[in-house]
Amino acid sequence: MKRSERLVNITKYLLARPHVLTSLPYFAENYGAAKSSISEDLGILKRTLAADEDGILETVAGAAGGVRYIPFMGEDKARAYVKRLVNEVQQPDRILPGGFLYLSDVLGSPYHLQQIGKLISTHYAYSNVDYVMTIETKGIALAQAVSRYLNVPFVTVRHRSRVTEGATLSVNYVASASDHVEKMELANRMLQENSNVLIVDDFIKGGGTLSGMEQLVKEFHCETVGKCILCEAYYPHQQQVSDYLALVSISQIDQQNKTIHAQPGNFLEQTDFNKFEK
Amino acid sequence: MKRSERLVNITKYLLARPHVLTSLPYFAENYGAAKSSISEDLGILKRTLAADEDGILETVAGAAGGVRYIPFMGEDKARAYVKRLVNEVQQPDRILPGGFLYLSDVLGSPYHLQQIGKLISTHYAYSNVDYVMTIETKGIALAQAVSRYLNVPFVTVRHRSRVTEGATLSVNYVASASDHVEKMELANRMLQENSNVLIVDDFIKGGGTLSGMEQLVKEFHCETVGKCILCEAYYPHQQQVSDYLALVSISQIDQQNKTIHAQPGNFLEQTDFNKFEK
Repeated sequence: MKRSERLVNITKYLLARPHVLTSLPYFAENYGAAKSSISEDLGILKRTLAADEDGILETVAGAAGGVRYIPFMGEDKARAYVKRLVNEVQQPDRILPGGFLYLSDVLGSPYHLQQIGKLISTHYAYSNVDYVMTIETKGIALAQAVSRYLNVPFVTVRHRSRVTEGATLSVNYVASASDHVEKMELANRMLQENSNVLIVDDFIKGGGTLSGMEQLVKEFHCETVGKCILCEAYYPHQQQVSDYLALVSISQIDQQNKTIHAQPGNFLEQTDFNKFEK
Repeated sequence: MKRSERLVNITKYLLARPHVLTSLPYFAENYGAAKSSISEDLGILKRTLAADEDGILETVAGAAGGVRYIPFMGEDKARAYVKRLVNEVQQPDRILPGGFLYLSDVLGSPYHLQQIGKLISTHYAYSNVDYVMTIETKGIALAQAVSRYLNVPFVTVRHRSRVTEGATLSVNYVASASDHVEKMELANRMLQENSNVLIVDDFIKGGGTLSGMEQLVKEFHCETVGKCILCEAYYPHQQQVSDYLALVSISQIDQQNKTIHAQPGNFLEQTDFNKFEK
């Protein structure tokens, strides 16, 4: 195989396997090339990813070492995307009766899911996440997008028992919209004990659903390592939880004048983007 | 920029934008390179994708021309993956009371979703799909995976009205499990008229849900260009629809002896894998 074809191949291979460690000998054997040539190829990929600020090629030294591709978004790209997202969210035709917001198009768009997934994964790239968790229905797209870039499974909490899940563990929580006590549950075999869980959801108002999921994580003897929301509706007095990240923050939905006031949430300021080795 | 770095960059760029046409002048300007050099780079990428049988780089001639990357899985890889999937599905611990099957782990695995998404997209790569449609909840992961590789939005049909969707269009259908008439609906603004819709779902028993979705597509003045199911439970006398593709076919779930009989569905034999230009 020619040098240039090997380079394309290695790029394809690593981009398809985020966070997975591959040893240099694997590449050397697979391509019938010297380890020094492979090292050069990896150096090119590393510099190209860093120059574009859209990924990190991490080198792990030693006998059990190798390289892994960490999807990672640079600060400029992150700010530009969040700005675009805020503009998108502020479109007046998103207002639905009752002060709700139509976001299903964003959550069904491959472009947005790619950006959002990569952005959230950037923050949690070094948090040793074992599972991404969300609650049905709209959070699923988000969880799957993050799961892709962290390369860990995602699990979906359900509102009520389904016959196709088997045994489940359930908790009660106060639904913000209704003030009623409701039930959420997850199949027993979905989470392994002592795992690190990242909770994501599309929208937060009071935070009842979020604290329900945290409680569920505890019941499974796991730990919540992060909570990240696409869009928060920030009405301070209603908050049941506060220590989460939000990409977009909505301060006002004015149904009469058909305006939405949104701004970047706390996600950007809470994220350390300085991980690129130059 | 050096030749090798440009090659890595072009590979990254095109792989992140399935089915999108990019003009040669765009690359030439962006990288400050001659069109002939860009053509050489694209030739290398094209040959590498074809040799691996994991994608097609399509060249469109003329003034409005350019190149596009079509995610495409070769027949050997497709057969190997379906075989693996059948083995997965046959694990006896998947049997749930009532003859249901636990598949949530497969539908939450980035590896499986990547393979399944690419495989289904291979069949429909040239079907001019505008939207992928599914019904909540478990089909969502599948729809999103296919949507990623076809690079079109996906829409989720809901079982009952939610306040956060706005105006909806609904149809009635006969739920196979209960024999009851139920209702499914989709927000009006989700589908544009005269679009081509690919319907996907995780599981089919009687097919009531599938025919409900077809009816819904018609109500939106759109056309169903394909129906593809991850896993069919094939009990011939119960079928309401027949013209769909299935990756895996289950002929028997024996709860007493804890065995599942599964085999590859009709997907492989119905797919034309001979699209690679050598």
